[in-house]
Amino acid sequence: MPTLSVFMDVPLAHKLEGSLLKTYKQDDYPNKIFLAYRVCMTNEGHPWVSLVVQKTRLQISQDPSLNYEYLPTMGLKSFIQASLALLFGKHSQAIVENRVGGVHTVGDSGAFQLGIQFLRAWHKDARIVYIISSQKELHGLIFQDMGFTVYEYSVWDPKKLCMDPDILLNVVESKQIFPFFDIPCQGLYTSDLEEDTRILQYFVSQGFEFFCSQSLSKNFGIYDEGVGILAVVAVNNQQLLCVLSQLEGLAQALWLNPPNMGARIITSILCNPALLGEWKQNLKEVVENIMLTKEKVKEKLRLLGTPGSWGHITEQSGTHGYLGLNSQQVEYLVRKKHIYIPKNGQINFSCINANNINYITESINEAVLLTESSEMCLPKEKKP
Amino acid sequence: MPTLSVFMDVPLAHKLEGSLLKTYKQDDYPNKIFLAYRVCMTNEGHPWVSLVVQKTRLQISQDPSLNYEYLPTMGLKSFIQASLALLFGKHSQAIVENRVGGVHTVGDSGAFQLGIQFLRAWHKDARIVYIISSQKELHGLIFQDMGFTVYEYSVWDPKKLCMDPDILLNVVESKQIFPFFDIPCQGLYTSDLEEDTRILQYFVSQGFEFFCSQSLSKNFGIYDEGVGILAVVAVNNQQLLCVLSQLEGLAQALWLNPPNMGARIITSILCNPALLGEWKQNLKEVVENIMLTKEKVKEKLRLLGTPGSWGHITEQSGTHGYLGLNSQQVEYLVRKKHIYIPKNGQINFSCINANNINYITESINEAVLLTESSEMCLPKEKKP
Repeated sequence: MPTLSVFMDVPLAHKLEGSLLKTYKQDDYPNKIFLAYRVCMTNEGHPWVSLVVQKTRLQISQDPSLNYEYLPTMGLKSFIQASLALLFGKHSQAIVENRVGGVHTVGDSGAFQLGIQFLRAWHKDARIVYIISSQKELHGLIFQDMGFTVYEYSVWDPKKLCMDPDILLNVVESKQIFPFFDIPCQGLYTSDLEEDTRILQYFVSQGFEFFCSQSLSKNFGIYDEGVGILAVVAVNNQQLLCVLSQLEGLAQALWLNPPNMGARIITSILCNPALLGEWKQNLKEVVENIMLTKEKVKEKLRLLGTPGSWGHITEQSGTHGYLGLNSQQVEYLVRKKHIYIPKNGQINFSCINANNINYITESINEAVLLTESSEMCLPKEKKP
Repeated sequence: MPTLSVFMDVPLAHKLEGSLLKTYKQDDYPNKIFLAYRVCMTNEGHPWVSLVVQKTRLQISQDPSLNYEYLPTMGLKSFIQASLALLFGKHSQAIVENRVGGVHTVGDSGAFQLGIQFLRAWHKDARIVYIISSQKELHGLIFQDMGFTVYEYSVWDPKKLCMDPDILLNVVESKQIFPFFDIPCQGLYTSDLEEDTRILQYFVSQGFEFFCSQSLSKNFGIYDEGVGILAVVAVNNQQLLCVLSQLEGLAQALWLNPPNMGARIITSILCNPALLGEWKQNLKEVVENIMLTKEKVKEKLRLLGTPGSWGHITEQSGTHGYLGLNSQQVEYLVRKKHIYIPKNGQINFSCINANNINYITESINEAVLLTESSEMCLPKEKKP
C-alpha cells in the first residue's frame, strides 16, 4: 500500500476561466451586468435557441428508424457535407473541384485542438500564431499550450471607430501565414449566411490553402452538444485526402467518435427546405432584434447628451460590437457601475435588454462625462 | 497566391482501424461473420440499445423546462456523481472520504486521452504501459502516440483455459505501477453492477491511487453520444482537487465542453429508482441471453463430438470470452471459413445468433479436427 501520494507534486491549477467572468461571479452587487457572454442572449437573459431546433429534436426522438451506433471517426457524412456547403456555398469552386473536406469535431474547441495537433506535426516551421479578433483568451491558450507563440491583432481601429479588414489581408499576404479561420456564428452577423463567410470565399478565390473551424452551436442554439467542423481547403483532391487521413488518425486518439445528436438535428434542418427556411427566418429575427437594441442604445446616449459620436454602434454587424470607449471609461464601468466589459470595449449587444438598457446607457454617459476632461479620446465628430 | 501546397510533405496515413475489421470488410464472401465487435449485439445483428433509453430520450425531448446551455468543462455534475456511485458503490469508503472525483469526457477514448495527457505532464517517470486484456489496438495506440512504450498482458491462461486475475495483482504490486483501469461495460459482465467493478473496490481498500476510464455507451446502448468518465482516486481530498484542477485545464483545451445528451439520459435513469430498475432488468436479460448462447455453443460442440473440453466457454462471464483455440485453429477459421476472430481467440459471444450458430460451431469442429493432429494444445480433460 503506497504511503505517499503519486500526485504530491501536482499543484492546484489556475482557472482558465476568463478573469472578467471570474470577477463578475465574485461580485456581490445585486444589479451587476455581464456584457461579454460568447453566445447570443434572449431578452430574458437566456442563451438563444432557434425554435426549429426544439421541433426537430422532438421529431428525431420519435423516429424509431434511427440507429444509435458509433459514428465513424470522421463523423456524420451528411453533416459534414451540409456544413461545408453552408460555409463555402453550394457552388463553391473548391467544393466542385473536390479540394474541400472536413472533420466533424467536438465543437469548435475540438476543431482547434485537432487543427493545431496537425500543424504541430506537419507544419513544423510554423511556431507563431497571429490571432485576429478578441478570441485570444480561449483559442490562444490552446496554441500556447502546444508551444506556439501567440500575438493578437485587432481589425478594430479605435481612432477611426470602425473595422479595417485590410489589416487581416496585409498580415496574411506579407508574412506567408497559414490561415486558420474561426467562424463561430455564421448567420448571426448580418443574417445573410453567404455574406457572413465572404472572407472564406475570397481566400478560396485567391487559391489559398487553409483551415477553418466552424461552430454550429451558436447559430442554432445547441450549446451543449459540441457541434463543430474542422474544414480543410487544399490545392487539390490528392493533398486534401492526405491531410484528412492524418486528421482521422489524430481524431481517433482524441475522441474516436464525435457525438451525434447536435449534428443530427442540424443536418435535418439544413437538408429540409422548409426547416431551413424557418431557421433562416429565426436568424433574421435575432439579427433585427440586435440591430434594434443598438439603435436604442445610440438614441438613449443622444438623448442623454453624451459627448461624442455614437454612429459606430449601429454601423457594426453582429451580436458583438465595440462601444468605442477608452480603457479609463471601461474601467469606470466595471469598477464603479458593476457593468462587466472587456478591456477593448467590445460587448455582446444581445446582453442588453429592456431591464438593463437605461442603467447601461446612463452609466456610459457618466463614464464619458467623468473621464472626458482627463483624456480626450473620443472624437466629437466622426470623419467621413 | 501560393503555387506549392503547404501540405506537400503530408503522406496518406495508415488506417488505424483494426486490421481484422479491415480484412473482414474487404472480404467478398457473402456469409462472412465478424465475431470481434466491441459492443453487445442483438439477435438481429444490431448494436443493443436498452429499452429504457429510448423512452427516456423521448421524455427529455418533450421537457420544455430543460436548457441547452454549454456544460462546464468538467461536465454535468449530477452525471459525474451518479457515474462514480455506480463505479465504486454509493457507500464506497473513498467517496465518503471525498477523495474520488471525475471528469465527464467524450467517451472512454476521451477519458484515455485526458488521463494520458495528465500522466505525461505530471508523472514524468512513467514511460512504460502494461495493458491488460486485448484492448491494445485501441488504447495502446493512444499511449504510443504520446511516447509511451506499451506491453500487453493477458489474464487468460491458455493452458489452464481460465482467467487468472492474480497476474494483474502481481504485476501492479511488484512493479510500482500506476493503475489506469478501463471499465468498458459495467453490468454486461455478470449483470451484477457491483460484482463487475469488484477489482476497483479491492484497489480502493488497499489504499491505491488510480485512474479509471468508464464508458457508459455500451451498457446503456448509447453509442453515438460519447458518454464517458475519467475517474480519479487520490489519497486525500486535497490531492484530488489538485489533480482535477489540472485535468480541467487539459479538458478545456481538448473540447472545452463535453456533449450533454447521453449524460442527460443516463443521469435521468440512474437517479430514478423505477427507470434504474428497468435498466437493471434489461442488463439481466442481455447477460442471460449471452449465457444461453454460450450454453448452445458448448452443447453443439458436444453433439458434434469436437475433441477437447469446452466448459471454459460457459465458465467465463460477459459478452467477450475466449474460445480456447490455438493460433492455427483461429487462422483456419479466418482464412478458410471467413469467420473473423482475433488471434487470441477472444470473441464477442453476442455476435453469435440463431442464423450463424450452426455454421460457426461446425467450422470450429472442422478447425479442431484438422489441426488436432499437428499441434496438441487443447487438453482432453480440464483439471479441477
